[in-house]
Amino acid sequence: MNVRFTFGTVVSEIYIEESIHTIHAIIGSDSSCLLVCDENTAGIAASIADTGRIQVGAVQSRLRLCGTCVLPAGEAAKNWTNIETILKAAKDAGLGRDGVFIGVGGGVITDMTAFAASVYMRGAKLVLVSTTLLGMVDAAVGGKTGFDLFDIKNFAGTFYPSPLIIMPLDTLSTLPLREWKSGFAELIKTAILDSDDDFLDRIGRLKDTFVSPYFPVNVLRDEVSRRELLACIAKSVEIKGRIVEADPKETGSRRALLNLGHTFGHALEAAVGLGSLTHGEAVAWGIARACELGRSLGITETERAEKIIQLLDSFGYETRAPHPSMKETGRFMDALFNDKKKKSDMLSFIVPERRGCVAIAIEKKEIKRIIHIINGEVM
Amino acid sequence: MNVRFTFGTVVSEIYIEESIHTIHAIIGSDSSCLLVCDENTAGIAASIADTGRIQVGAVQSRLRLCGTCVLPAGEAAKNWTNIETILKAAKDAGLGRDGVFIGVGGGVITDMTAFAASVYMRGAKLVLVSTTLLGMVDAAVGGKTGFDLFDIKNFAGTFYPSPLIIMPLDTLSTLPLREWKSGFAELIKTAILDSDDDFLDRIGRLKDTFVSPYFPVNVLRDEVSRRELLACIAKSVEIKGRIVEADPKETGSRRALLNLGHTFGHALEAAVGLGSLTHGEAVAWGIARACELGRSLGITETERAEKIIQLLDSFGYETRAPHPSMKETGRFMDALFNDKKKKSDMLSFIVPERRGCVAIAIEKKEIKRIIHIINGEVM
Repeated sequence: MNVRFTFGTVVSEIYIEESIHTIHAIIGSDSSCLLVCDENTAGIAASIADTGRIQVGAVQSRLRLCGTCVLPAGEAAKNWTNIETILKAAKDAGLGRDGVFIGVGGGVITDMTAFAASVYMRGAKLVLVSTTLLGMVDAAVGGKTGFDLFDIKNFAGTFYPSPLIIMPLDTLSTLPLREWKSGFAELIKTAILDSDDDFLDRIGRLKDTFVSPYFPVNVLRDEVSRRELLACIAKSVEIKGRIVEADPKETGSRRALLNLGHTFGHALEAAVGLGSLTHGEAVAWGIARACELGRSLGITETERAEKIIQLLDSFGYETRAPHPSMKETGRFMDALFNDKKKKSDMLSFIVPERRGCVAIAIEKKEIKRIIHIINGEVM
Repeated sequence: MNVRFTFGTVVSEIYIEESIHTIHAIIGSDSSCLLVCDENTAGIAASIADTGRIQVGAVQSRLRLCGTCVLPAGEAAKNWTNIETILKAAKDAGLGRDGVFIGVGGGVITDMTAFAASVYMRGAKLVLVSTTLLGMVDAAVGGKTGFDLFDIKNFAGTFYPSPLIIMPLDTLSTLPLREWKSGFAELIKTAILDSDDDFLDRIGRLKDTFVSPYFPVNVLRDEVSRRELLACIAKSVEIKGRIVEADPKETGSRRALLNLGHTFGHALEAAVGLGSLTHGEAVAWGIARACELGRSLGITETERAEKIIQLLDSFGYETRAPHPSMKETGRFMDALFNDKKKKSDMLSFIVPERRGCVAIAIEKKEIKRIIHIINGEVM
């Protein structure tokens, strides 16, 4: 299954495939390649290195692998030091500006590999192999790259869409349950953006199958569940891709919709310390806050807000305010004002409306409303 | 005097004006601004900060200045640490993604400010005030940004053209003679690329006026010299701008022509230690080597090569091979193979032909030819 988008000047081709061994690539045969992975995905990277090729169906690309760069796993590793490690590995492997960076991993690895490629000799080639649900439904698609700086998530970054993104479904079989759930939060987010409610209901129906102690091996073995998972990932990729096509660099109003739950979520992540919550846990909590903000402004109907929050609850996300891990609001508010969604003195939030979502701007003087929301106070 | 180019998706407007106080800007009045300068240009930055505005003729923009970031001067400061210093200053000044980075200085400052702006929250606004001859005729125009890494010049960088570039001629009055000469090397390079020889002859005629112990105050006071200088800068900007318009990201063959003298020059800079030669001194030596390489391949006519080298000599540049500061060729060859001009195992050089220049590729097995050239050995 493949889909193709045009993000600005780059055509991005995405393969959602069942196996790493059935994937095709558009890598030039004379290009030097560097594999970038973390401790968790080193095995997948090694299997690519072993065969020395990436293929799908009839088309097969032989890779001229020149090196592998293995980084520590986790959000705490998403820093300049590790970007420099990638750049150094590429230099030592002898990559020229026609060299290919192949990022193999979740959002942290694909964001960092893509950033490194975007600044390596002012821009090298890039392939992403997304190995987590979060990466597949969100991080790997759309060209945002970056790393954390000054305790702010993705504070430094570029727009650098990958011409080729590979999503091998079988890599999900070893994903820990918490990471799996983290991905579902972004899937729910995308479904809320969709103008028709079916996608949200569909995710609700899948919950029992996918978020259970029996996951993931059983689910991926079962042909029906597997096909439904593939379809949900594909639908999420499709929705996100079309939004990004309309506004690739978030200069208009379309792409900002994808930030639903993220203004609150990023600030929560920073307030409790980057890496202590998964991105999905923070986003799920942020979506709940966005629902309440929308309700307080008369934009989100109570019924819709309750439906969304109930779905989040059923996945076991923390949706209560204040968040139990957040000791005081000071750091949260600091992080909020450092957020990239800020334009001048306005804070931008996405809130659900009857169908889909809408962007709203909150002025600094209205900030009490936000404090009430994060503290769970009735207004 | 102003000129406008389209570099990819960005319209870049360049003002070559006689005074910092007669310059207009397209900065939104509600945008927060950060001034970035070095120790040498802090006075110029202060004068912008004092008036709080940038203007030309009737159009005037009031700046909402939120901070000034003063970096150490020189090539040695062109590193990640100082990029982080700029990003931190912007964050502390409260700049959002609609904030404006105003780089005030020579090539090092404008390259670094532009890089910082390009990655700040995935891209902030950018204005460059170019205060050196080298910056005006080369560095500030065309969207290349970057910093040095692993002892390789501009190893990390982006393409991020500035929508507004200001070249206030009066800032040249305090430029040291050596920096002044450094700029002339790039001016000569651009003139060699020009299909008609007049520009090269014109620079030759200007030499006695511009490179003398009486420079720069006297020259800038004299109306005729001043106008001729303005015209030469404008012509260089025009030639470079048109080349970059045709190939903004150096993916084709056009933009590479601007690298005349740079493959040899960058390797020389790295071999003798970044910062010990000026960029122009290295480029001038590199142009002489390119002439000899062209001759050895039968591409550059002897008469043309001699004319170019004589002009370089008349400016007092070191054009002899081997370069007196280069103790051995090992580091030079390492640097050559780390150069961004490398594609796979081919090295790309630009050599003069009868009119203008042409790109040639040298395979690794032909590398002896390059060693002969840098050692000044007869083949």
